[in-house]
Amino acid sequence: MKNSLRLLGVLLFAVLAGAQERRYVIADQDASGPGGSDMAALLVLLQSPKVELLGITVVSGDMWRDEEVAHALRLMELMGRTDVKVYPGAAFPLVRTQEGTMAAQRLYGAGPWMGAWNPESKTKWDEVPALTEGNPTTKAAEEDAAHFMVRMVHAHPHQVTIYGAGPLTNIALATKLDPHFAELAERLVIMGGSLNPHTENPEWVNDPRHEFNFWFDPEAAHIVLTAKWADVTVTTVDASLQTSLSGVLKKMAGSKAQAARYLIQYARHFDLAEIAWDELAAATWLDPAITTKFREVYLDVNLEHGANYGDTLTWSDGDKPALTMQKVHAQVEVDAPRLERDLTALFTAPTPHAHDVALLPAK
Amino acid sequence: MKNSLRLLGVLLFAVLAGAQERRYVIADQDASGPGGSDMAALLVLLQSPKVELLGITVVSGDMWRDEEVAHALRLMELMGRTDVKVYPGAAFPLVRTQEGTMAAQRLYGAGPWMGAWNPESKTKWDEVPALTEGNPTTKAAEEDAAHFMVRMVHAHPHQVTIYGAGPLTNIALATKLDPHFAELAERLVIMGGSLNPHTENPEWVNDPRHEFNFWFDPEAAHIVLTAKWADVTVTTVDASLQTSLSGVLKKMAGSKAQAARYLIQYARHFDLAEIAWDELAAATWLDPAITTKFREVYLDVNLEHGANYGDTLTWSDGDKPALTMQKVHAQVEVDAPRLERDLTALFTAPTPHAHDVALLPAK
Repeated sequence: MKNSLRLLGVLLFAVLAGAQERRYVIADQDASGPGGSDMAALLVLLQSPKVELLGITVVSGDMWRDEEVAHALRLMELMGRTDVKVYPGAAFPLVRTQEGTMAAQRLYGAGPWMGAWNPESKTKWDEVPALTEGNPTTKAAEEDAAHFMVRMVHAHPHQVTIYGAGPLTNIALATKLDPHFAELAERLVIMGGSLNPHTENPEWVNDPRHEFNFWFDPEAAHIVLTAKWADVTVTTVDASLQTSLSGVLKKMAGSKAQAARYLIQYARHFDLAEIAWDELAAATWLDPAITTKFREVYLDVNLEHGANYGDTLTWSDGDKPALTMQKVHAQVEVDAPRLERDLTALFTAPTPHAHDVALLPAK
Repeated sequence: MKNSLRLLGVLLFAVLAGAQERRYVIADQDASGPGGSDMAALLVLLQSPKVELLGITVVSGDMWRDEEVAHALRLMELMGRTDVKVYPGAAFPLVRTQEGTMAAQRLYGAGPWMGAWNPESKTKWDEVPALTEGNPTTKAAEEDAAHFMVRMVHAHPHQVTIYGAGPLTNIALATKLDPHFAELAERLVIMGGSLNPHTENPEWVNDPRHEFNFWFDPEAAHIVLTAKWADVTVTTVDASLQTSLSGVLKKMAGSKAQAARYLIQYARHFDLAEIAWDELAAATWLDPAITTKFREVYLDVNLEHGANYGDTLTWSDGDKPALTMQKVHAQVEVDAPRLERDLTALFTAPTPHAHDVALLPAK
């Protein structure tokens, strides 16, 4: 009896300690709607029982902020996790504008994916069209994204991962609102930058140093990359181009899990949807063994407003500028089968802490 | 009797209407301490019975933010206006850094006034030295500058003047936190930019387009100047160099008013203290007739990170870029005697709504 009680105590301790070990994260994300890498990444964080998703902060990028907020709210409804609040962030990049970018393209040539600024996009910045996956009935938080992030790192100093898989505008604002923000975070995990991708994909053949998130708000990326983080891990284009989601999609077929059903229903609506972008960054944060090769580099972004505005810059120790800089772990090679296993397991599991799951609309 | 009552009604209405006509303003300001133009400008706003100073938002510029917050708090104590709260803002510019600026100066030559970054300044960014005018016992507000500004323009839509006489970092942050911020303000009044000053002053002989506030945070200035304000008035170096405060100082001699005593006690501690900078912008907002000549120009800041990073850019209708821009009223000539009369009258009057005035330290 005494031994049983002791065992119970040990078990209770293990359960409580396990509960304490849930890792805090804020998902700062553009959220382009079902089928998008953005949403799959949110699901990675939401589906892991090891993660406490403190909130979703939304930034214009792949789409405009207000539509993205609606997609994120709706995702939380469909997964029964409306307790995870959605915080609207920056509607526009710090310096780059759509109008200025179009004018510059007359001089330097057109870019590939331009997210909210794609010429075929008809939605205005402050409009929210009807959503394919159904319109949300829940509302966004009153607090803005940057302020929420600042508040959270003060509430849980050195315990919150800032995961940023969109343009880095919100994280830059938080950094500038509070000079202690970056150092109070546990770490920074981002999807951004392109080093030397081996690809015939036209997006990188002409400019291997181009990557959308850095390109969309170069000044924000520079501010974030030069802030004083304890640790920075970066999922690059190089790493993403080694992945494919087609195996995950096949293996999920027939799953009754709400996450899998959502992803299957809306997959392949977008170009490049078979490549893991943001979901690679999120999954690697949970399972670092997905990375098979890092480059340890000083990372920055070109801020000259010419042909290479927003391009990724890197240096090694021997050639860096004579300025205070911080190395990042740039993920450049991945264990693609391991990623596939991890994503399949996460998406086909029941959503932890789910309540009041909303019905997925019929196809 | 009936007529008397009617008269009383008319008078009451006039008094009430007058009270309603007090103009809301937020003073966004670096605050370099007694003797500085920053503090004289705060006094202009505080001393006018026509003004309701909603708060003082502080930004690094002439000095570091934390020391400036202390100077601003102390000023409110000395004037008996601790009801006017002080909101700490950005400690650092958005993109420009002290270290990067020093490196660039090896290539492009040294700049003149560098504010917090002046080589002789010994104070670190998060240190507050003992203040000449006595240390404050009051504390800064918890809310940060940018959020306070956003909150105020929503509380009083189209009624709040944003007066910015330091680097424009806080106002840029507010603009990016809330895409409706600029349009919800009544107007923007700034001290910044240099057009074609007629001067032998070495600060402008080599670069007539250099001005400290724009220079210290060029990206912030660009963000603010390209936001959608209802009206923008800019006090330029051209205008300031036509002014002198020596007449005001003479005329204030012997005044028992606390503002005058503070200014006399600490005047001339700084170079250029005899020129009206921020106080010219503040006084012109109160009395537009101080301006004898405006240039109506499109105004921006050079963001190329070369020799002219942060320099003032202007265009007229015929040569502006093919981008959406907004004209500003750039004050380039002033009625100096009128400014002297206005400032003397303000500084020698009792401080409106003063309570618990703190003792000025002995000289």
